Amino acid sequence: MKYAIGILAAALCAAQVTPDARLRASRDTYSPVMEVLRSKRAPVTEAQLELFKAAPLEAIWGAVQGLGYTNCHYSGLKSTRPTERLVGRALTIRYLPRRPDLDEAMATLAKEGGWPRGYNVRAAEDAKPGDVLVVDLGGGVPDGIFFGDISALGAKLAGARGAVLYGSTRDLIELREMAGFPVLAVGFDPRPATQIGVDWNVPIRLGGVTVLPGDVVVADDEAVLVFPPQLAGQVATRVTRIVDQENYERELVRQKQHRFRDVYPLSPELRKKYEAGRKQP
Amino acid sequence: MKYAIGILAAALCAAQVTPDARLRASRDTYSPVMEVLRSKRAPVTEAQLELFKAAPLEAIWGAVQGLGYTNCHYSGLKSTRPTERLVGRALTIRYLPRRPDLDEAMATLAKEGGWPRGYNVRAAEDAKPGDVLVVDLGGGVPDGIFFGDISALGAKLAGARGAVLYGSTRDLIELREMAGFPVLAVGFDPRPATQIGVDWNVPIRLGGVTVLPGDVVVADDEAVLVFPPQLAGQVATRVTRIVDQENYERELVRQKQHRFRDVYPLSPELRKKYEAGRKQP
Amino acid sequence: MKYAIGILAAALCAAQVTPDARLRASRDTYSPVMEVLRSKRAPVTEAQLELFKAAPLEAIWGAVQGLGYTNCHYSGLKSTRPTERLVGRALTIRYLPRRPDLDEAMATLAKEGGWPRGYNVRAAEDAKPGDVLVVDLGGGVPDGIFFGDISALGAKLAGARGAVLYGSTRDLIELREMAGFPVLAVGFDPRPATQIGVDWNVPIRLGGVTVLPGDVVVADDEAVLVFPPQLAGQVATRVTRIVDQENYERELVRQKQHRFRDVYPLSPELRKKYEAGRKQP
Amino acid sequence: MKYAIGILAAALCAAQVTPDARLRASRDTYSPVMEVLRSKRAPVTEAQLELFKAAPLEAIWGAVQGLGYTNCHYSGLKSTRPTERLVGRALTIRYLPRRPDLDEAMATLAKEGGWPRGYNVRAAEDAKPGDVLVVDLGGGVPDGIFFGDISALGAKLAGARGAVLYGSTRDLIELREMAGFPVLAVGFDPRPATQIGVDWNVPIRLGGVTVLPGDVVVADDEAVLVFPPQLAGQVATRVTRIVDQENYERELVRQKQHRFRDVYPLSPELRKKYEAGRKQP
Amino acid sequence: MKYAIGILAAALCAAQVTPDARLRASRDTYSPVMEVLRSKRAPVTEAQLELFKAAPLEAIWGAVQGLGYTNCHYSGLKSTRPTERLVGRALTIRYLPRRPDLDEAMATLAKEGGWPRGYNVRAAEDAKPGDVLVVDLGGGVPDGIFFGDISALGAKLAGARGAVLYGSTRDLIELREMAGFPVLAVGFDPRPATQIGVDWNVPIRLGGVTVLPGDVVVADDEAVLVFPPQLAGQVATRVTRIVDQENYERELVRQKQHRFRDVYPLSPELRKKYEAGRKQP
Amino acid sequence: MKYAIGILAAALCAAQVTPDARLRASRDTYSPVMEVLRSKRAPVTEAQLELFKAAPLEAIWGAVQGLGYTNCHYSGLKSTRPTERLVGRALTIRYLPRRPDLDEAMATLAKEGGWPRGYNVRAAEDAKPGDVLVVDLGGGVPDGIFFGDISALGAKLAGARGAVLYGSTRDLIELREMAGFPVLAVGFDPRPATQIGVDWNVPIRLGGVTVLPGDVVVADDEAVLVFPPQLAGQVATRVTRIVDQENYERELVRQKQHRFRDVYPLSPELRKKYEAGRKQP
Repeated sequence: MKYAIGILAAALCAAQVTPDARLRASRDTYSPVMEVLRSKRAPVTEAQLELFKAAPLEAIWGAVQGLGYTNCHYSGLKSTRPTERLVGRALTIRYLPRRPDLDEAMATLAKEGGWPRGYNVRAAEDAKPGDVLVVDLGGGVPDGIFFGDISALGAKLAGARGAVLYGSTRDLIELREMAGFPVLAVGFDPRPATQIGVDWNVPIRLGGVTVLPGDVVVADDEAVLVFPPQLAGQVATRVTRIVDQENYERELVRQKQHRFRDVYPLSPELRKKYEAGRKQP
Repeated sequence: MKYAIGILAAALCAAQVTPDARLRASRDTYSPVMEVLRSKRAPVTEAQLELFKAAPLEAIWGAVQGLGYTNCHYSGLKSTRPTERLVGRALTIRYLPRRPDLDEAMATLAKEGGWPRGYNVRAAEDAKPGDVLVVDLGGGVPDGIFFGDISALGAKLAGARGAVLYGSTRDLIELREMAGFPVLAVGFDPRPATQIGVDWNVPIRLGGVTVLPGDVVVADDEAVLVFPPQLAGQVATRVTRIVDQENYERELVRQKQHRFRDVYPLSPELRKKYEAGRKQP
Repeated sequence: MKYAIGILAAALCAAQVTPDARLRASRDTYSPVMEVLRSKRAPVTEAQLELFKAAPLEAIWGAVQGLGYTNCHYSGLKSTRPTERLVGRALTIRYLPRRPDLDEAMATLAKEGGWPRGYNVRAAEDAKPGDVLVVDLGGGVPDGIFFGDISALGAKLAGARGAVLYGSTRDLIELREMAGFPVLAVGFDPRPATQIGVDWNVPIRLGGVTVLPGDVVVADDEAVLVFPPQLAGQVATRVTRIVDQENYERELVRQKQHRFRDVYPLSPELRKKYEAGRKQP
Repeated sequence: MKYAIGILAAALCAAQVTPDARLRASRDTYSPVMEVLRSKRAPVTEAQLELFKAAPLEAIWGAVQGLGYTNCHYSGLKSTRPTERLVGRALTIRYLPRRPDLDEAMATLAKEGGWPRGYNVRAAEDAKPGDVLVVDLGGGVPDGIFFGDISALGAKLAGARGAVLYGSTRDLIELREMAGFPVLAVGFDPRPATQIGVDWNVPIRLGGVTVLPGDVVVADDEAVLVFPPQLAGQVATRVTRIVDQENYERELVRQKQHRFRDVYPLSPELRKKYEAGRKQP
Repeated sequence: MKYAIGILAAALCAAQVTPDARLRASRDTYSPVMEVLRSKRAPVTEAQLELFKAAPLEAIWGAVQGLGYTNCHYSGLKSTRPTERLVGRALTIRYLPRRPDLDEAMATLAKEGGWPRGYNVRAAEDAKPGDVLVVDLGGGVPDGIFFGDISALGAKLAGARGAVLYGSTRDLIELREMAGFPVLAVGFDPRPATQIGVDWNVPIRLGGVTVLPGDVVVADDEAVLVFPPQLAGQVATRVTRIVDQENYERELVRQKQHRFRDVYPLSPELRKKYEAGRKQP
Repeated sequence: MKYAIGILAAALCAAQVTPDARLRASRDTYSPVMEVLRSKRAPVTEAQLELFKAAPLEAIWGAVQGLGYTNCHYSGLKSTRPTERLVGRALTIRYLPRRPDLDEAMATLAKEGGWPRGYNVRAAEDAKPGDVLVVDLGGGVPDGIFFGDISALGAKLAGARGAVLYGSTRDLIELREMAGFPVLAVGFDPRPATQIGVDWNVPIRLGGVTVLPGDVVVADDEAVLVFPPQLAGQVATRVTRIVDQENYERELVRQKQHRFRDVYPLSPELRKKYEAGRKQP
């Protein structure tokens, strides 16, 4: 009996709501998760991004996981610009394999929303300065192509700083020449796209990591890090501290005045000395 | 100038709508694609499912692709019940890797919606008779566990007919004993889940195939086929025809009265004869 | 100067010959290697095949490699009939990915040669009793499909004993039911073939092994062994000896009268005893 | 200065000791780790092993990780006897790829120690009743062969209960017939061994898990679990409790009197009831 | 009856022809496919190759698939000279794993044909200016070695422009220094070859693509493209058109006067404007 | 009876010896193999290392395998400094996955031996000039991390010349900047280590190769070669000869006065000429 009431309560709670008909044409695809989180996600600042651009990836990783985000990185992608660090705000896109009814639905939505059908084309129109395109194509090559150099050029001119593809790209040679717009991908292939963009700015998968729209993205050819923008201040503070201490350790290592084990990690005594030194003006 | 107007128009079209606050607690996660397609998706009947249960997988594949759904199958999964055919309606679930903000948002939504937090638990409550759980966990083992034998038992008692996991499961030994509830998965591992369910009944990825909620699922340990329910009638008709003709071909092959090439595929003459025979009562 | 003459000599030696125009329609594709070897390849007998059907795979492997064929096996294929040993003579077929000019050329050759275009169909007409179809499709799944159950039935009725596919097959469920016709393949997929048969009975690749037409094939789900038919007698003799000795060793192991190391391998003393026992009538 | 003294102290501490010349011929290879741990490793009892033979793998996994051994399982091996549970005490063996100086050293040690050169042969002599051979061959196929059916027979007659190979085995067909002696391996291949046994009963690697000699091994074709023998009692207690509670949950699920979420996991109320029921005689 | 006649006809058609005894010593291995196609394969010109050397790979891919050759590329190889485009005519070579009878037959043929036994050596003698060596070694590393730097030097001096290996090469460091001779391979390994060249200038497999002798090869470290030489003119025309239009599109994108979607792909209006502009002198 | 005596003899031979209690704190982990081989392993000289630094890897490979060490190389690692050759003496370290009892035992041993607990830290203290750290972490990424740039700096300052990791490293960007200290690894990942060092200077596995402490290591991004130090003189002599002859061959190839086949390999006549030339002062 109680059980039946429970079921009823559940039925009441999860009753289907008739959504606003215009909702489906919303720029950002409706996402319950983002509705819940929206108010808590103060955006990252340019100054913070600058700091992340220069800091060691491991220091940022350490700071982020210290804040409870232990599952924040994905390694194994290849970069078109291996020496350039990519830093920005995630614009997330979800692709799915094509099928006629899905293609038709997406065409309807594009018409209603007034956006172009290809989400690579849309990215070239809708990207904001500081965006990093993060695209979930299921991780495949060659069936995971997102874009080519013309769409990339469009996105770059719109202010995007690069792309992280859980998938692949064509026009490798041309993208390599595109300074200031690194593209990280599982692989490269000359064929055009075989999947279709279905969601815009929703939570997506990048290998073993979840990326939310607006997340901070820090990437080079070792790994991609992502974390919530409201943590950027705390992360920056921790990174500064980690880098400072590591530089101190490196200096001590170079001086060869101490056993390595006392320097790395710092022995209680050396830590005291280090902390004392930091407090001075 | 015209360009600016275009931009403006786009801005108007894709203006953000303020969604109904209760929408996020809707049983089925809001999906623009499903909103567009809903009216066109007449459900599959039990009689049709029965036919698909017995028909050769290749005949169904042939029928479905003949209707334009060329990208309709995924092979490579392992079955806990290799000799059982799994047939039903897709209840789709999307999982993502855990992170603290996502976990918190999902807890809020579970409370608002009145459903349990684990989506394996929810499946044991919400599955309808004839459902096949199709779960996108990103394709991984061991980090793609969906459920164990107790949740599976719950889902089975609720009427579900099995599960197709783009991911993995624990309790392999126990699931093998569960007649009438085949589980197809990328692999098996004893650890519990490390991901979290985020979307209920939305379009998902099963390897290189898109699965929509309500799709017909036909699976055995060779491959999983999915197609829209409104095509079930046409598929059934085509399958019947294909099977009939192939049986005729097999019979001719066994009689050894004709060159194999004239039987498979049927020569014009034998086809005529075959068509004539079919018309008779 | 001498160099120039050498070049000239080479040019003379390797001058292009105008081949008989009908050669291209020959049943077996012309192969220089097989032309050289033909006279040396006395076929395997049915009695020898019977012996190989029952003998341990490792004993045959040992015998074959003892004759200098150290590179004679390929492991890793899956069998549709795991408990059935497959033994016979290799009918080899080479497939290549399709392209319009190749397809057109093969159509011309099929017409000139009077054989059907699909080599799976041709196998159902041309296989001889005792043949094992060994097909090089480059090792891929899903792009390496050779046949389905109707062609397999045709080949079986023609006398073929099974197939070894460096590629894949469809109709897994139906093939599993086909007793007396094991199919070993890299994998299984419901789609039809995407490659085209180009060579009939020429040397082919099966993973890291070369298979020549007429080779003895011995296979189960541990591995596929191939060796030249003219060695079958020597192999049979060696296998008989190895099996006899191993049975002796197993018997001694079970008696527990000797240290294991003296039994396996046989100590000089036990070997003497064994050899003595063998000579008795 | 202080640094120099530290270095000196370290030099004193870690001075090379001249070991007993007979040590190298010790049955168990000398292992500093095992020297430290020996006194703490009370062996598992037969009664405990019996309990582990019947318990669900996940229940044991849960119990072991609850004791801090979170990294205790390895999945992905194939079993020659998929329906048999393998339970026993680890006899660990380490293999390395061959090279002339290593082969020569091992021959010297075999002579001095009085054991046979092949460690598969040695296992057939030295295994004790209840042992499970756990062999680290680096995880490879085909270059990771440990033994064939004759050595396996020897080990079985000596009382060993099976083998877990981070490597491979030959004689698959024969091993499949050997009831009561499951062999779990990465794969199967007919060629003989290409590596050489170098350590006997030392800590080894089984994929991502460390196995110590004397560890409890519980394995089936889902996964291999290992844990220290002195924990067997605690593990057994926890397993009994987990199994009991899960059976209670299964029973409740079958009764359909409660919401699934209240049963799995047990709601506070049902837990109280369950705990009350357990206390009764 | 009719069936018997059909069989007879087939037997007549496919009767074995006695080939010219000198045929097996022909420079190019006899290939029925090439016999059929020979007259249709007008060679590519140097001017066309120059154009392909500079054009974007994707433009060529687009042109080739527009002519029906949809399956014309293979990606995933590594280049010894990543910044160099490789363009030329395919000289195709097929290798197979060694076995004594095959080795003996190839030695006989080498003697009769007056060519050296190693096909890497033969390539250094027989390559023509403009050739690209395309070698099918089954795709393996380390068992797929074709050559080292001395044979590569020989081939280069003979006029070859590089190599595409469905296999591997040794002497990586030395090959990297060899400007004007890029080698694309699956991988690199210091060991010498373990396979043997068996066919010269026959149709071969390069992953999922068929390569015919004389095909145009265009390759960089993104992908290898191949297509029939008689299509080179049409491909060149299409490539020129594609490149011209894409440059126009890039220019428009940079000007930012239009919505991106109107530029890529060109809107009807802009296409008209573009076509008009092209007609002007 | 005889069997029982054999067993007894074995028991006597392999009786357990009570080892010196201080042995477990020995700097180098006790290894029976190294005890046997120690006296035979004359160290490599700096002059020999210099020669190996400049010689082609394939020439060294050829020399080493000519001395019977056919299994001496491992390819497939990635280098942080692709253009730098790494040459030195192997300091070998074995890691195993963590578990509480193992961690505790290693802490005890570190205390007794006076060395730091992390073996990456220990390497920074204990490495000798000319050492190459060769670390067996089981071959994994991301679970095979050995060290980061600070430990690497420590090891470098201690005189180590680089590292070969059958595992992975963090701080890729920083390591790339560290000239004179190439690190070769299976991959790169920002997370810290998850395994623990258990053995110091014992025989270890590097993929399919055994590495002994003190072995000569020669590595670049094509492959890693290892061989016993006492062979260094012979290897050097052979390498010099191989390089000299190959240079002669390259010269002849460039002169184009001979057929390539007479130069590579040298014809009897040219070999005579070459040998004559070498004898002259």
